[in-house]
Amino acid sequence: METMIDKYPSRVDGEACLLPRLDPVVHGNKPGQLSRAELSAFESNGYIVIRDLLNEREINMLQHECERLRRSERIRQSELAVTEPTSGETRSIFAVQTVSDVFAGLVRHKNILSAVRQLLGGDVYLHQTRANLKPGFRGKEFYWHSDFETWHAEDGMPSMRAVSCSIALTDNYEFNGPLMLVPGSHMYFAQCLGRTPDGHYLKSLKKQEYGVPSDAQLEWMVKEHGIDVPKLQAGSMVIFDCNTMHGSNSNITPYPRTNIFAVYNSIENTLQEPFAAEAARPWFLGNREPEILEPADFSEIGNAMPALPA
Amino acid sequence: METMIDKYPSRVDGEACLLPRLDPVVHGNKPGQLSRAELSAFESNGYIVIRDLLNEREINMLQHECERLRRSERIRQSELAVTEPTSGETRSIFAVQTVSDVFAGLVRHKNILSAVRQLLGGDVYLHQTRANLKPGFRGKEFYWHSDFETWHAEDGMPSMRAVSCSIALTDNYEFNGPLMLVPGSHMYFAQCLGRTPDGHYLKSLKKQEYGVPSDAQLEWMVKEHGIDVPKLQAGSMVIFDCNTMHGSNSNITPYPRTNIFAVYNSIENTLQEPFAAEAARPWFLGNREPEILEPADFSEIGNAMPALPA
Repeated sequence: METMIDKYPSRVDGEACLLPRLDPVVHGNKPGQLSRAELSAFESNGYIVIRDLLNEREINMLQHECERLRRSERIRQSELAVTEPTSGETRSIFAVQTVSDVFAGLVRHKNILSAVRQLLGGDVYLHQTRANLKPGFRGKEFYWHSDFETWHAEDGMPSMRAVSCSIALTDNYEFNGPLMLVPGSHMYFAQCLGRTPDGHYLKSLKKQEYGVPSDAQLEWMVKEHGIDVPKLQAGSMVIFDCNTMHGSNSNITPYPRTNIFAVYNSIENTLQEPFAAEAARPWFLGNREPEILEPADFSEIGNAMPALPA
Repeated sequence: METMIDKYPSRVDGEACLLPRLDPVVHGNKPGQLSRAELSAFESNGYIVIRDLLNEREINMLQHECERLRRSERIRQSELAVTEPTSGETRSIFAVQTVSDVFAGLVRHKNILSAVRQLLGGDVYLHQTRANLKPGFRGKEFYWHSDFETWHAEDGMPSMRAVSCSIALTDNYEFNGPLMLVPGSHMYFAQCLGRTPDGHYLKSLKKQEYGVPSDAQLEWMVKEHGIDVPKLQAGSMVIFDCNTMHGSNSNITPYPRTNIFAVYNSIENTLQEPFAAEAARPWFLGNREPEILEPADFSEIGNAMPALPA
């Protein structure tokens, strides 16, 4: 395999800079699920909100599925689960489409795929998926980060041609640790300081120390662009660019915050060798066996499910 | 000293109950700073917001004073400072009126005292004061608590006849770890589980483990009454009842959240022996030498200060 040029050097020594983005934000211009206005908002802000992606029946079904996975001792002890440092409870589950037919259907939802294909300009595959079960009372914060920085440095994703879909299964209130985004931050690449330690992902999923922006970088971006906290009702979705700076505060309220997170990458942007780490991360964090996704009718999958207990 | 009856037993073994409040919320009915509507809102919700208590010049002066105290190495190393567990930075400073003439003036602000005297029905003194310097980026959460529970159990405050004033020196946004309150929660006393360990306050100021409500108590109160997050601009103030359940999430944004916290207690409600601890806490947490407060004209104190550097 020929060596790729590193457009976005990170995990550097000395000075961490804000570099300009060298890739388009919207790739291609085919029609699809998203309107001109939505494409243009995505281009400026680095994210858009899609309301009412799922109906109440579908939301209930997915919540039920999350609860099943959360309670599974087999999953809790598997490599797919991230557990709370103190309580040991399951906080995130990776590669959810591999352990659940319902989630396997959701990630191929035809409306999601149509929007994602439009943004990324053609065929896409799953880079990573995750169920985030941010509990009430003791939900921890996620510090600010650009997903792309980690995917580039530790997984070898060459270009910014991927998007994350965060599908809300519970209402996001202002007070239960909602997703915060810095609109416009996707136009800069915030270099991060420090060489990546071996096996970094084992720690970073619980508490990130490398691959986080500096106070000065964040301060500048927030001063320039502010912070958006989209109000999300259960069943709606945020699509955000792989390089949009985002994070969330802790959640001491009794309201849990559950979302499904699916990362779509262009089939023309498959993973190379990591740009700033010794070894690539495992398959459930950065998929190296791309399969082009075909859309599915999610409501039909829901109808085929057995009735849920009341 | 005769033994007082414990109206609000806490730090119990076994079962923690919600007990009814046995004290009035508004004590007395003399006229003052607060309107009928404000008194009635305080009675129902357990808090009210007073807008525009301070003008811009006064806010700047107080921010400058906070910064001076935050940087003081003498204060950082004194018993008055609570420091961040990880960074060692000063997070809170107690008894601010003893180390700053400006704060000594602020806590006697005539508009504050008028409102407080009206709520508590007569003469008041300072039970505790604090400057909370919740930094940006790494500001930690404060878990839910009723102040009165601790003041009763650990300081020996007999009745619910005290109020807290939280004066905002920076804007409270929805995303920088703002004060959250459960309106109506002041009408229940949430018993807490577990005997108080000796010297508990040394740990509890950094991370509270005793004196916190149970998940079930909180869930019930929030389901019944919801959560309020008052939008506060710098210079405004929340007055809340000593028993109103409140807390705040972490703050990963670059915006610090600074407030001055002053607790006024009725002169008829001075401290006894602690109701659920071996020894009383130190003077800067629970004042045992009450001095009735006389109002001062805060704007005159400001005018007497030397000009600040630009």
